[in-house]
Formats: sequence, structure tokens, C-alpha cells
Amino acid sequence: MAKRKIAVIGIGKISQDQHLPVIDKSKDFELAACVSTRGIGHGDVPVFKTAAELYRAMPEVNLVAVCTPPSVRHAIVREALDHGKDVLMEKPPTPTISELDDLRAYAKKKNLVLFQTWHSRYNAAVDKAKSILRKQGVASVRIDWRESVRKWHPGQDWVWEAGGFGVCDPGINALSIFTKIMPFPVFVKSAVLKFPSNRQSPVDAEIVFKSSEPHQPEMSAGFNWLEESGEIWTITIQTLDGNELKLEKGGTVLKVNGKTKVEAPSEEYERIYEHFAELLKKGKSEVEDAPLRLTADAFLLASRYNVDEFHW
Amino acid sequence: MAKRKIAVIGIGKISQDQHLPVIDKSKDFELAACVSTRGIGHGDVPVFKTAAELYRAMPEVNLVAVCTPPSVRHAIVREALDHGKDVLMEKPPTPTISELDDLRAYAKKKNLVLFQTWHSRYNAAVDKAKSILRKQGVASVRIDWRESVRKWHPGQDWVWEAGGFGVCDPGINALSIFTKIMPFPVFVKSAVLKFPSNRQSPVDAEIVFKSSEPHQPEMSAGFNWLEESGEIWTITIQTLDGNELKLEKGGTVLKVNGKTKVEAPSEEYERIYEHFAELLKKGKSEVEDAPLRLTADAFLLASRYNVDEFHW
Repeated sequence: MAKRKIAVIGIGKISQDQHLPVIDKSKDFELAACVSTRGIGHGDVPVFKTAAELYRAMPEVNLVAVCTPPSVRHAIVREALDHGKDVLMEKPPTPTISELDDLRAYAKKKNLVLFQTWHSRYNAAVDKAKSILRKQGVASVRIDWRESVRKWHPGQDWVWEAGGFGVCDPGINALSIFTKIMPFPVFVKSAVLKFPSNRQSPVDAEIVFKSSEPHQPEMSAGFNWLEESGEIWTITIQTLDGNELKLEKGGTVLKVNGKTKVEAPSEEYERIYEHFAELLKKGKSEVEDAPLRLTADAFLLASRYNVDEFHW
Repeated sequence: MAKRKIAVIGIGKISQDQHLPVIDKSKDFELAACVSTRGIGHGDVPVFKTAAELYRAMPEVNLVAVCTPPSVRHAIVREALDHGKDVLMEKPPTPTISELDDLRAYAKKKNLVLFQTWHSRYNAAVDKAKSILRKQGVASVRIDWRESVRKWHPGQDWVWEAGGFGVCDPGINALSIFTKIMPFPVFVKSAVLKFPSNRQSPVDAEIVFKSSEPHQPEMSAGFNWLEESGEIWTITIQTLDGNELKLEKGGTVLKVNGKTKVEAPSEEYERIYEHFAELLKKGKSEVEDAPLRLTADAFLLASRYNVDEFHW
């Protein structure tokens, strides 16, 4: 079968690191165009300043991957759906829940595929952990998610702006794994967010979760954006059977009682595009909103503290 | 038909001001019991310290109205549903969206009625405004919602705690009207929240809304909790036909171009209980989440500022 033509909208770090190289080697997709307000392209495909120009010039392109910052996504995805395009969205989807709900409803109304990606979910170690927890139950969960904002978002001031999520931008990756592997619904019980006094999004978050499980498992998460020792992206789970699971390196490694059970090279974006191809074949949308909801819930009921200023 | 027996859980200010007197004169309901951790009752009905005691002692009571602060609602409503009770909930429903979604799904699973009340929606002036806007369209909306926290929540420290909503507790009433009357979906575009430097919830909120309407109506809201001149609970709307609608006094009065069109005595809670009776007759739940979502969205993407300390 011929490859499906896809355009990438928003050519920033994540497009250049992941989307474009993964599309280049995909058996399902081929890059047809880039849309970049800054005029950045890839290979020899056409580059448009706006999506409207793309839709006019290349109406045969029926798919778009939207990789802009979340603040402008709602209008861009609505516009794409209005032009009859199926859409893949980078995470986090939108700055608000109402916008994500609206896009889901709108895609359904237009009978188009909307796929909300959560890259950290696409790891064999995550699937294996889910299956173990379904059988063994959960006694406790601790999420530790610490990285350097200077390394992962160099100079990107938008992550510090209101609506930019701050440390919850990486943290939502942990929540996307957490909500995938848990065998029961989880809720935010309390949260503490720390804001650099010169910024509008948090540098540190500590979240306590609750559930309706009778045995009341203890569950919590700590996110920090000033970790310079390297990435700590770990979820530690005690099962009711007395075993300890550790998902390490962002969900790519699973250890059980200290022994490595799954360790696969990270091919998250390869699997995202494979999954998108399947959804397109079935004509089926997939918009999982639990990670965004938990994040919104943490902001809604957090205690807030100001801490040291942040400068790049 | 015999009146339906109902118990009220949480005997605070709103129960005493509204729920209990309205039930007393209702043709559909009769008060069967109170649940109050502080042992506060009403008339000569039994008082229980916990809902579990009520359910054990009076299994014939099939309905509960939950009027506690939102922080403990999720567990209380889940417990009520587990005991086969239909449930009415005071606003705001829960401190987080995930909890409200869970309760809605759980009521559906249990095949029970869950009714999320938003009292400000129950006014003839609101219904009339909705019908005018459907015909005339919306050019702009300004919400002004200012009242004295000292008058309306005297000494209630929980409203200032994390998860207590702060000035968005009254503000969500405005949003419940706003989301009822608007003929199209609205989203939070930006927000500024001001927190007393010794409190964890905001005293002042300024929210800008957006929509996907091509003519981009200007819509905004200002909430303040230190207004001592009296209540200002006003929504001003310019229609595309060039008329000015003013919903005043919390949605009980509608003026069109300065002339009063609807002015009815406030019977919000009477209408809530009438509506609950209808829902029970039909076996139908009603959980409208848009007001809570917009509130959560405002917290998620707000700029935050510290202002003067608040003391009672």
C-alpha cells in the first residue's frame, strides 16, 4: 500500500528530535509538507507559514501532526478538522480540559480521526507493568520525575508562562503511564506547587493521590525541574502480593524485585505512528484525557508557594 | 402520592438557609433525617453522626441531599450510591473534575439518579436570556460578580483552604448561568488569580474567555470577594442584533435595553427540588460539568499574584 502523506505543523524541538526522523523511516507515512511560522523545513518538502496555505496548496494531504505548543492547538486542530484532515496531537494536548473535550466532540461530529498521543505509554515495560498490577493489585505507588529544564527545554520561555504547565509538562508523562497501568481510578487528594517567584508555572510539584479502593493504597508523585544529576524518571510500585516493581528511565525498563524483566530501546514515537496507522485503518479516534485531568486537578486544589527566581 | 423521604447530609449554612426550609414546604419530599458530624438537627427528625449510621438505622430512606463542603463529597456520594441511594449534590460538586466524572460513571453503573445542582440556573430570567441569545446571537459578554465573603461565608475557613475555590465558589454560580445561556461552547483563554498572601485560594479572579465563533465575541468575567457595598451579581450581554441584556441580582432579573422584562422572586431551591422529583420519576441523572471545568481551566492556566493578607 502506498504510504499516507502527512504534514507536520509546528517544527520545534520535538518535531526535529522525533516526529520528522520517525516519519522519514516509517513504512506507513511519508512527509508531504511542514508548517512553520519561522519557515523551518525538513528535507526537500514544501514549507508553509500557515496551515491555511498548506490546505490551499496541497489539498491531497489528508493527515496532519500538530506539534505546536499547546496554547494554539485548539484553533489549529479545529481548522484541520474543518478541512477534513485526520489529526495526531503531540502532548500535552491543550491548555484546558474544555478545549480537549471540544476537540474530541468536534472530531466525532466531523467523523474524522483524532489521536491524542502520550509518548511515554508506548513502551513494552509499561504494558508488562500494567498486566502485573492487574493480577497482583497495588499496595503503594511512588512517582519520582526529576529532570533539568535547561537540558530538555533550553531557552523555551513558553514552558514557564501561564498555561505552559511548568514541571507538569514532563510530569504529565509520568501521569500518562500511571493512569495506564493502574487497575482502578485515581484522584488528586492534595498537591503542593512551587513557583519561581519570577515565573507563572511551577518548578516543583508534590502530589498525593487517593482512590476508592478499600485498602487505601498510598500513592504520590514528586516532580522537579532543576535536577542536574541526570534524569530520574522512576515509578516504584509495591504490589499486594509483596513484590516491588520499578519502571525506570521513563517507562522503558521494568525491574521486579531488583531484577530487570523488560529493557527495550525506546521506540515510543515509532509505536505512536504505528498506532496512528491502525487508528486510521479503523477510522477510530483515541483521546485519553486522564493525564490532563489529573494535572488540572492538581492545579485546582494545590497549595502554592513562591520559591527562588528561575533564570536560564 | 406519598412524599419521598429524604435525608440531608451536612447541616451547615446552605442546608439551614435553603435545603431544610424548602424540603419542609415541598409537596414532593419530606425530611426523614439529618447527618451532621456536629450533631445538628432540624425539627424532630433523627440526627446521625455518620451516613453509615443513617443507612443502618433507616434503610427505608432512599434519597440523600449532600450539602457538605466539596472536599469530602466523593467518598460520601460513593457510599450513598453503594447503599442504593439516589443523590442530590449541592454546588460546587467536588474539588476535582476526575472525582465528578467518577461519580457520574458510578451512578450510571449502579443505575441510580445523581443530580448535580447549580442553583443560579433555576430562574425564569436565565431561561428567558437563553432563549433571546439563541435567536439574536452574542456580540459580547461581561460578568461582574462581587460580594462580601464576610457576609456570605462568615468564619468559614474552608473556603480559603486549598481546594476551597475561594472567590470562584460564588464565581462558579456566574459560570453556571453563563454556560447555560451561551448558544456556543466557551473556553478560558487567560486568567489572573489574586491570592491573599496568607491564604491558599483566590480573593479576586479576572477571566478572559474565547470561542470558536468566527466573529470572536469578547467575553470576560471579574470576581471579587471584598465588595462591601452589597452584592453585584450581573451579566451584561450585547446581542448581535444590537440589544443589551442585563441579568441582575444573580440571575433573578432580566433587563433588555434598560427595561425590566423578568423579575421573579428567587425560588431557586424550590425549583431544584421540583426538578429532582422529575428526574427521580424518569430515573434520569443530570450532571452538568461545564461550570466546574471552566473553573479548573482558569486555575490551570492562570497567572498568580499575591495580595494583602485576609483576616475575618
